[in-house]
Amino acid sequence: MKILVTGFEPFHKEIINPSSMILTKLPSTIKKHEIICCTLPVELSCLNMIKDHINKIEPDVVLSLGQAAGRSAISVERIGINLDDFSIEDNKGNKIEDTKIMIDGPDAYFSNLPVKKMVEFIRNKGIPVYVSNSAGTYICNHILYGVRHILKQKGKQQKSGFIHVPMLPEQAIHHSNMPSMSLEMMVEGVIAAIEAIISEEESV
Amino acid sequence: MKILVTGFEPFHKEIINPSSMILTKLPSTIKKHEIICCTLPVELSCLNMIKDHINKIEPDVVLSLGQAAGRSAISVERIGINLDDFSIEDNKGNKIEDTKIMIDGPDAYFSNLPVKKMVEFIRNKGIPVYVSNSAGTYICNHILYGVRHILKQKGKQQKSGFIHVPMLPEQAIHHSNMPSMSLEMMVEGVIAAIEAIISEEESV
Amino acid sequence: MKILVTGFEPFHKEIINPSSMILTKLPSTIKKHEIICCTLPVELSCLNMIKDHINKIEPDVVLSLGQAAGRSAISVERIGINLDDFSIEDNKGNKIEDTKIMIDGPDAYFSNLPVKKMVEFIRNKGIPVYVSNSAGTYICNHILYGVRHILKQKGKQQKSGFIHVPMLPEQAIHHSNMPSMSLEMMVEGVIAAIEAIISEEESV
Amino acid sequence: MKILVTGFEPFHKEIINPSSMILTKLPSTIKKHEIICCTLPVELSCLNMIKDHINKIEPDVVLSLGQAAGRSAISVERIGINLDDFSIEDNKGNKIEDTKIMIDGPDAYFSNLPVKKMVEFIRNKGIPVYVSNSAGTYICNHILYGVRHILKQKGKQQKSGFIHVPMLPEQAIHHSNMPSMSLEMMVEGVIAAIEAIISEEESV
Repeated sequence: MKILVTGFEPFHKEIINPSSMILTKLPSTIKKHEIICCTLPVELSCLNMIKDHINKIEPDVVLSLGQAAGRSAISVERIGINLDDFSIEDNKGNKIEDTKIMIDGPDAYFSNLPVKKMVEFIRNKGIPVYVSNSAGTYICNHILYGVRHILKQKGKQQKSGFIHVPMLPEQAIHHSNMPSMSLEMMVEGVIAAIEAIISEEESV
Repeated sequence: MKILVTGFEPFHKEIINPSSMILTKLPSTIKKHEIICCTLPVELSCLNMIKDHINKIEPDVVLSLGQAAGRSAISVERIGINLDDFSIEDNKGNKIEDTKIMIDGPDAYFSNLPVKKMVEFIRNKGIPVYVSNSAGTYICNHILYGVRHILKQKGKQQKSGFIHVPMLPEQAIHHSNMPSMSLEMMVEGVIAAIEAIISEEESV
Repeated sequence: MKILVTGFEPFHKEIINPSSMILTKLPSTIKKHEIICCTLPVELSCLNMIKDHINKIEPDVVLSLGQAAGRSAISVERIGINLDDFSIEDNKGNKIEDTKIMIDGPDAYFSNLPVKKMVEFIRNKGIPVYVSNSAGTYICNHILYGVRHILKQKGKQQKSGFIHVPMLPEQAIHHSNMPSMSLEMMVEGVIAAIEAIISEEESV
Repeated sequence: MKILVTGFEPFHKEIINPSSMILTKLPSTIKKHEIICCTLPVELSCLNMIKDHINKIEPDVVLSLGQAAGRSAISVERIGINLDDFSIEDNKGNKIEDTKIMIDGPDAYFSNLPVKKMVEFIRNKGIPVYVSNSAGTYICNHILYGVRHILKQKGKQQKSGFIHVPMLPEQAIHHSNMPSMSLEMMVEGVIAAIEAIISEEESV
């Protein structure tokens, strides 16, 4: 299998983003499956960029990663919704409100990755993790919904989903009472999630 | 200098306690100063045990460590108060309420360690940390207040204070929405705190 | 217009539920529109019961209310998802996991009530309120998704949506650090929300 | 008995302060005991102002009230500590750090009001409440510690203590995810606390 893993550039006053730092620590293969990494900009054009990657690479799985300030654990997202409603500007200075991502798209798409199995594999490593029912209405949800829509249109049964990670300790020191997680643990968690995906695919 | 560092046994349904696990990872000297470690039981007798250690070792500094479930960062305690008021039982099954620790003691003792400098040294390592104004009214506060009282009575200007650490990730997975910190980062934080104490002593 | 407002019976160790107590305080008309109230059981059969009501009454609007322990403000839900995944038992003792609400239904339905306008009207009364992007995966979400599905099937453009309210102070005293809101304020908030719905309908 | 109840002016971007608004709703007597109210400025001079009041009125009890943003319940403070360490400026623009309130004062004073009984009386009204072990290191703590010190010096066994109240709903709407409590409930809670104080005094 080919597994495309994406992260994001820093945004909203932060100078680093754990989701792209994780990418630099992933191995090039996991259980002999190819891992291809790609960092996306925090703006609407991220969807066109990932679409180009998908068309060029034709990955079997797209796993996107993003930063969720304030969360204490890794969270595996269950669903993306057809809505952009930013509470902060994106990196291009846009603050889009109450706008559909895909004008003719359905209201939402469930991730078709094995969400509960990913949580189980991550927790078995001793890493705090839970299932999240909302990826928000910012760029993270935009990618989660948008990639599901793109893959649905392609009709090749490709899988996709999203994982949020907490802030890094070096980010948390600049905020009051902000939970964090070490980069090493995040990397271990993402690898465990990918192993869950592989295990699911191989068991089918 | 001789620096006595104490941790606690596991308590209240937990099977590990990061504060005693940190002790096993500390070096035997920091900047040529001797580090002596000791794990205490989570019951009132901890104070007699530490008193015996203090009288035998005559440490220059006593730094006690404890676990604070729900906190996201290392917290350096500012003050211990003359009160036992347990919301849970200790490991002997006692749930003491509204009782003075020292019947003739003052209402509270400030830690005489350099609290702000310890925070600064820890934060400079990229580790989330803050000053806490309450160590609670359980065994952690009991030790913080009790050791200050013991050292005051001895009249030798020995220093003491307390650091709370968050739960470990492997503990947090059994709780809902519980922040955590890696053991490696806690150890690095405690070493930084000890370096701050040494720096303060040497600058006097 | 006929506006059907539903609340729920108490559940999960609570002996009252603010959502049904609000119903007893609502006027029989708001701006000359008829308000019809109905309390639902906290179990899957709630959907059949509300379906019967809808078929009998043919309301123009169905506004459902529910209790969200831990939330500090009224929250107007944006979307219901096609999933039952209970973390606690319902009042019949069932703990359904990872099950679709409607086997052939879409992944989610947006509320077609004027969510942002409802928030604006409530906030203008000085009442804390926000838009929520997840109604969870318990009975509240079950009703939100299920009623949208029923109304969509009927094809009469009837509107529906969901509002979560915090715990009442008299409930919060039995929990540690639980935010709450007075019943009077909840009632005022729900009336403001209904006025927003009426204003939207009349402006079309 | 004469009971002096104090509140504070608005501070730090807020245009109202529930603690002074409560004063306007208190009756002039409670169980035949005289209630005298006084609003204090949020700056260090508040202590001189209250000292003048105390010397003029010679109250049997001084109960001070203040606002604690972020708390969900009324909290009865247990202890005031000998430290000013502001994280925000006071209303005079001063941001005092690491400074003793009374240069020769003890490290802390327990409130000598019946803290647990006040909590019990408030909770019996169905109002969320808890005992707090820290009044912070800002002006609220300054008054709590300072008044205890003043009364101790006078040597007349006068009692004093402090109650923190949450934000009002009309304040909370301007903050994200901020718990609040209605003014009516705060007033009822403070009256219940005063009744507890009276009950304690009369039972002695």
